[in-house]
Amino acid sequence: MWNSIGNNFTITSFGESHGKCVGIIIDGCPAGLPITDHDIQIELDKRKPGVSSLATSRTEADKVEILSGIFNGCTTGAPICLLIWNRDIKSSEYEKKRFMLRPGHADFTAFMKYGGFNDFRGGGRFSGRITATFVMAGAVAKKLLGLIGIEVIAHTIAIGDIKVETRQVEEIRENVEKNPVKCADTGAAEGMIKAIEQAKKEGDSLGGIIEGLVLNVPTGLGEPVFDTLEGNLAKALFAIPAVKGVEFGAGFRVAEKKGSDNNDSFIIRENSVVTATNNAGGILGGISTGMPIVVRVAVKPTPSITKNQNTVNINSMEEVSLTVKGRHDPCIVPRAVPVVESMIAVILCDFAIGAGLIPRVIK
Amino acid sequence: MWNSIGNNFTITSFGESHGKCVGIIIDGCPAGLPITDHDIQIELDKRKPGVSSLATSRTEADKVEILSGIFNGCTTGAPICLLIWNRDIKSSEYEKKRFMLRPGHADFTAFMKYGGFNDFRGGGRFSGRITATFVMAGAVAKKLLGLIGIEVIAHTIAIGDIKVETRQVEEIRENVEKNPVKCADTGAAEGMIKAIEQAKKEGDSLGGIIEGLVLNVPTGLGEPVFDTLEGNLAKALFAIPAVKGVEFGAGFRVAEKKGSDNNDSFIIRENSVVTATNNAGGILGGISTGMPIVVRVAVKPTPSITKNQNTVNINSMEEVSLTVKGRHDPCIVPRAVPVVESMIAVILCDFAIGAGLIPRVIK
Amino acid sequence: MWNSIGNNFTITSFGESHGKCVGIIIDGCPAGLPITDHDIQIELDKRKPGVSSLATSRTEADKVEILSGIFNGCTTGAPICLLIWNRDIKSSEYEKKRFMLRPGHADFTAFMKYGGFNDFRGGGRFSGRITATFVMAGAVAKKLLGLIGIEVIAHTIAIGDIKVETRQVEEIRENVEKNPVKCADTGAAEGMIKAIEQAKKEGDSLGGIIEGLVLNVPTGLGEPVFDTLEGNLAKALFAIPAVKGVEFGAGFRVAEKKGSDNNDSFIIRENSVVTATNNAGGILGGISTGMPIVVRVAVKPTPSITKNQNTVNINSMEEVSLTVKGRHDPCIVPRAVPVVESMIAVILCDFAIGAGLIPRVIK
Amino acid sequence: MWNSIGNNFTITSFGESHGKCVGIIIDGCPAGLPITDHDIQIELDKRKPGVSSLATSRTEADKVEILSGIFNGCTTGAPICLLIWNRDIKSSEYEKKRFMLRPGHADFTAFMKYGGFNDFRGGGRFSGRITATFVMAGAVAKKLLGLIGIEVIAHTIAIGDIKVETRQVEEIRENVEKNPVKCADTGAAEGMIKAIEQAKKEGDSLGGIIEGLVLNVPTGLGEPVFDTLEGNLAKALFAIPAVKGVEFGAGFRVAEKKGSDNNDSFIIRENSVVTATNNAGGILGGISTGMPIVVRVAVKPTPSITKNQNTVNINSMEEVSLTVKGRHDPCIVPRAVPVVESMIAVILCDFAIGAGLIPRVIK
Repeated sequence: MWNSIGNNFTITSFGESHGKCVGIIIDGCPAGLPITDHDIQIELDKRKPGVSSLATSRTEADKVEILSGIFNGCTTGAPICLLIWNRDIKSSEYEKKRFMLRPGHADFTAFMKYGGFNDFRGGGRFSGRITATFVMAGAVAKKLLGLIGIEVIAHTIAIGDIKVETRQVEEIRENVEKNPVKCADTGAAEGMIKAIEQAKKEGDSLGGIIEGLVLNVPTGLGEPVFDTLEGNLAKALFAIPAVKGVEFGAGFRVAEKKGSDNNDSFIIRENSVVTATNNAGGILGGISTGMPIVVRVAVKPTPSITKNQNTVNINSMEEVSLTVKGRHDPCIVPRAVPVVESMIAVILCDFAIGAGLIPRVIK
Repeated sequence: MWNSIGNNFTITSFGESHGKCVGIIIDGCPAGLPITDHDIQIELDKRKPGVSSLATSRTEADKVEILSGIFNGCTTGAPICLLIWNRDIKSSEYEKKRFMLRPGHADFTAFMKYGGFNDFRGGGRFSGRITATFVMAGAVAKKLLGLIGIEVIAHTIAIGDIKVETRQVEEIRENVEKNPVKCADTGAAEGMIKAIEQAKKEGDSLGGIIEGLVLNVPTGLGEPVFDTLEGNLAKALFAIPAVKGVEFGAGFRVAEKKGSDNNDSFIIRENSVVTATNNAGGILGGISTGMPIVVRVAVKPTPSITKNQNTVNINSMEEVSLTVKGRHDPCIVPRAVPVVESMIAVILCDFAIGAGLIPRVIK
Repeated sequence: MWNSIGNNFTITSFGESHGKCVGIIIDGCPAGLPITDHDIQIELDKRKPGVSSLATSRTEADKVEILSGIFNGCTTGAPICLLIWNRDIKSSEYEKKRFMLRPGHADFTAFMKYGGFNDFRGGGRFSGRITATFVMAGAVAKKLLGLIGIEVIAHTIAIGDIKVETRQVEEIRENVEKNPVKCADTGAAEGMIKAIEQAKKEGDSLGGIIEGLVLNVPTGLGEPVFDTLEGNLAKALFAIPAVKGVEFGAGFRVAEKKGSDNNDSFIIRENSVVTATNNAGGILGGISTGMPIVVRVAVKPTPSITKNQNTVNINSMEEVSLTVKGRHDPCIVPRAVPVVESMIAVILCDFAIGAGLIPRVIK
Repeated sequence: MWNSIGNNFTITSFGESHGKCVGIIIDGCPAGLPITDHDIQIELDKRKPGVSSLATSRTEADKVEILSGIFNGCTTGAPICLLIWNRDIKSSEYEKKRFMLRPGHADFTAFMKYGGFNDFRGGGRFSGRITATFVMAGAVAKKLLGLIGIEVIAHTIAIGDIKVETRQVEEIRENVEKNPVKCADTGAAEGMIKAIEQAKKEGDSLGGIIEGLVLNVPTGLGEPVFDTLEGNLAKALFAIPAVKGVEFGAGFRVAEKKGSDNNDSFIIRENSVVTATNNAGGILGGISTGMPIVVRVAVKPTPSITKNQNTVNINSMEEVSLTVKGRHDPCIVPRAVPVVESMIAVILCDFAIGAGLIPRVIK
């Protein structure tokens, strides 16, 4: 099940960047959830390119079409198939350069793995475009989580060398959709925008860091020893092309901390046990503590740059020089924010259904 | 399948820290692999505590017993059950303090999830002791990988604020078992040892970073879009208690890099396509490039410290002060090195069998 | 993964009888298999209704559309999505009688399970129409099996009280598509046709038995103890609505046999070990012996009959009388033959890929 | 996961007939279930040989040992490992004849699949002895089902040519453990016993049919389209060596029935919808109707017979004559009854947990 993830709320992705469509099947969604294509479209639009000078000027329509599993405005309990028909596709450039391995892309590994049979156009199955299908699944997952009060928010905390401290949830919620870099710190957002524009001018690209938060998590989600919250979230997040690191709570900073500093003291607040700090990122023993889940992912700079690069023609086996044309995002981070949010929502939903927190029929 | 991982080489862990035993089932191991309990014991001994002043002085025997799946010195194709009988167990301290939530441990989440029915003694199912079962599985996986020339090495690259640069493979291979902190840089190892001793004196603990390398990886391992190499490795590594971050190649540093700097140029060496650099950590599109796989995990400082800590008695619901007694590792990093190595081996083996690189019967 | 089956060649079904479409995703198909929509259409046409007076007169177009995973005439290694758009749908009758539970159908269980949210039109997710998606997957599976010489054939051996003995493979192969009841015994086929016509006249329906054969099976397919050939074939075959029994080889007749009569003696033919008889149906210990796999499925009479029936209105909770209108097959057996063939092919293909008999890239 | 079955209540079997032990891991058992080794032993004893002249005279101790997952008399939520140490093992006969393929056994297929590396002693992994592990899992499953009032009963309905009609549940419950053939019809039981004794005298063996019933099933268990009740039950039942057919309700008799006769009319009884008859065997559309689930399995005659048989020496590749010595059951049916009951219980439990009917923590 290479293209599926989830035990109870299972999503199966299909489609290629320049094929007919990209789509997702959701198996295990409870019956009776009211949901329309509009609900899904709202989430999809958050990932839309072309909204600013920072993103690709391609005009992907990206309109969701519901093929199955939703009837009379509600989920039926049957598999939900959500589709986006591909449009505005120009494959000629890819045909011309099909044997020129684009550095940082999956051209080489796909060619080797599939013996050259892979659909190479626009990266095919390895395109960032596939993540649009994750967002559609995330839209359904977020609706389900909303029923039990769980909220997922993602936001940009670094682009290039501009970093921000995590803000209060209220501030994040308010600001994240207000600027094109999806940063809660509006001042830093300005700097990020400038940095991206500068990289674009140089024919280069920038990476960054996205933080995901899950709020109002019930205590007890996650399964030791292998189906941990961290493990399943990480697996889902590494499905996003360009993600090269995932950390929880204090993350890599734990290496430099002492136990006395890293341990979160338990205290009692409003008759509940909580922790005074949250270095654990809301997870102990692979199980949610009830504190906010905090996860951060490192996103690499867009591999498609207009600067000249050295590479290999895999057909002629010659070292060559390559200039990638096309309309590419100089920084993929802002568009990856809703994708990170979606994958987190899918995994949380999977655990919540498994734990019986979301019923099989919603009334 | 919460306690299982792997699609083709599937391991299922069971047992508790202070129960009768800890064990692992391996399902999917090809028939005909010559293996003895001695082969497994060698790996298990690398995780042994009590070898230095840096580790707990408990004398866990940790002797592997083969219960099934191996006959006349070879694997049979049937499930392999490997067991370690628990000994030297003192549970009285745990009985006494069973409701005192140890900060940084899973006491609270386990209590909440299992309604107090969990075996709390020594952390029960959440104990680091469970990782001994991972090492036994890793011993088998490493034998299998050895058949096709794949080598897995892990080593310590940071403890507290002492960090080392990655060394040449030869140096790592030579030095890693020579010092108790499993660091390839013998000079830095001295500093790490001193730092751990100092932390111990203070009743405190230290975290660190472990790097795992996979050498001679064939191109093409890993399955898009969800069963990626990164995703499955990360999921397996987050099963190790104390791991709070996982990154590949340039990892979190990609955030600050430009595309022109982060992209690895393709070049031709000895008639093969390789990359000039390895920021990708040997993985593009979730698939192995043939370059060394490079993964790093952040290990938190041992939560068990003798310093006084604030916490809650979950039974009386009172805030209390806690001193954890017992013989605990002031730094778990060195003992986690063979565990990291084992989990990497298990996942690589899973992919190699799935790809048909290791036959179902070994001749 | 309720709507998925297979470990290595995994199919995921979606869609409803009166929704937009029915479709299937195939995950795990090797790259490089030449396949066209025509290849799939040929198989789909074998299940086509309206070819005779024996079947429903509905004219389902049932044209396959390839949405993903096939590029330049070959599979790419990415998930293959195959779709049939629904046409000729009249749902008004279903709307009118939505609360009238049709005896023998899933109306009641679906209503109870999904709280009435299920798409009830035409049986929705429970319609025999879903099996068209199995046939599309089977078309791909049969192509793959063909590469290693494995052949799957299904044929009708009983309709109502007319039963035939199994014929020679050559005769089956030659005759099965020659008569509308897909029976190798052309004489018996006449009787079956008459029996169906008689049942139709009476507003009634008939059941029957289908036999599936797998030829040229390599020794060694199947996994003990749970992923047996029998177990996985049976699970796949019970996914066909109307199947109420599955047996292998001598099947239920083993109950009356003595061991000395039921055991198949091993003999040597052309330097290979074979069995003199095949009561085992080609399977011992859940693993293929190399003899033909023989499986039989019992198919119940079509539950949709025009005769008056007693039932319940689930809304008003009253006992009522029901006459089912519509164009229904008076005997579903002939149309189920290609479906049985397809499910067998899918499972055999799954095992063959898992065993490494079909490579990941076909050259 | 070849040796595992179940999505929510997953069992993993290991061990060999003449190895150290046979065992089972249960993953997914809710916490807080009171259970002792005595509870499991009671079920295990039902499968015990040597209780009559009808069964093998081997004295297998078959004492359960709980290795993990149960603490202070209750399940903990962690994997439960249950073990039986093998005793009374004489392997010399098997060593001597290891290349003599016993007809009707898995000797040949195991040899071919595992290249001769399989543990051949006593059938190794393919021994009926493995089913003792199913019974231990069944004991836990039955306890869980008991919490929600679901009862599973199996009984013998045919041995050789002696068949009985299904009796009232009360009669079955009362009589099944009263005679050594586990038949509810005490008169027929006499005949069965004689038939078995006669077969034994002749050095031969008998097969039979076992019926399983599930009572008080809630409506709505089972998942279309592949994870159906029938499909999952059948897969589990075919894991029992010697089972060659599985049917539900009217089973293979549906072939001869008309729709008007086979359809079960819906009626109202005590404000609930039930069916007047139960040809569906309690399952429509793969989902439980609330009526008793009725399943029958065909069990082949014990392949081990003392009569002379023709076979092949797989080492010398010669046709030879074989006499199987040893103490074998002349009819395995009675001992398979608790195994059938156990596998049904495991699958029902799996669905009940998945549907949220059994909570994750039992209070």
